[in-house]
Amino acid sequence: MLGRTYDSEVCSIARSLEVIGERWTLLIIRNALFADVTRFGDFQRRLGIATNVLTARLDGLVAAGVMERSHTASSAEYLLTEKGRDLSGVLVALTDWGDRWAAPDGPPIIYRHGACEGAVHSGLTCDRCGARPDAVTASPGPGMPEERWMSGRQ
Amino acid sequence: MLGRTYDSEVCSIARSLEVIGERWTLLIIRNALFADVTRFGDFQRRLGIATNVLTARLDGLVAAGVMERSHTASSAEYLLTEKGRDLSGVLVALTDWGDRWAAPDGPPIIYRHGACEGAVHSGLTCDRCGARPDAVTASPGPGMPEERWMSGRQ
Repeated sequence: MLGRTYDSEVCSIARSLEVIGERWTLLIIRNALFADVTRFGDFQRRLGIATNVLTARLDGLVAAGVMERSHTASSAEYLLTEKGRDLSGVLVALTDWGDRWAAPDGPPIIYRHGACEGAVHSGLTCDRCGARPDAVTASPGPGMPEERWMSGRQ
Repeated sequence: MLGRTYDSEVCSIARSLEVIGERWTLLIIRNALFADVTRFGDFQRRLGIATNVLTARLDGLVAAGVMERSHTASSAEYLLTEKGRDLSGVLVALTDWGDRWAAPDGPPIIYRHGACEGAVHSGLTCDRCGARPDAVTASPGPGMPEERWMSGRQ
């Protein structure tokens, strides 16, 4: 999206940032996911951003398959796809970090489990032992070319 | 950092993005956290970015308290603070999403639990019932001014 590419990176963080790392993009997704916003005018009113910027971001999200445009009788709606809804983990992880480190008045928003109203947080889990790991190491997976890993340029 | 502000937002996602949402910033933190990179020249070699951009990003991370600069006999080192290390959850959440939606050859990197070598993933958990919630709703917390919430402009 808009020149925000990390072409030389073989990395799922870099690939994710190419799709959702543009200014305003994650806040658009936040409003779609947690405030059920679907219409251009509602995104604009809530975010207070310029029309041309919002147009570019929504077009980019549709092109990336994160949202889809649905034309109704009165206006277009922008709806998150499964790929877009799957960003809830990223948004809650960002919220948790911001709540801990950049929320002097306490959390502005609390996420709750629809079924039981309990607070929802993001965390890491080890698939094998089930622990919340304190130390995490990175090793190459099937998508990493061997020569890249050996060169140390990941 | 560098004009990347969302001043009118009362939101921990927006506050987080002000610190870590700049181009390259999360990839710098990734290299510090998972590849133990500390020196300017090593960040530059691995990321292949311009000196002036890297200088600006590292200075911004130090100013934000995410890294600290440590001068040794030979050169400066950039070390993550506790605030910086606490970004591991955000980075793994971004990785998991990228692995699912933007890694046609499979995950380039697999995170492993230092103690048992099991794969580590990010996920949401309900504090009350312990379930992995499928539906999450947002409600105002102590840091949300009431008039803001009522106006619908979060």
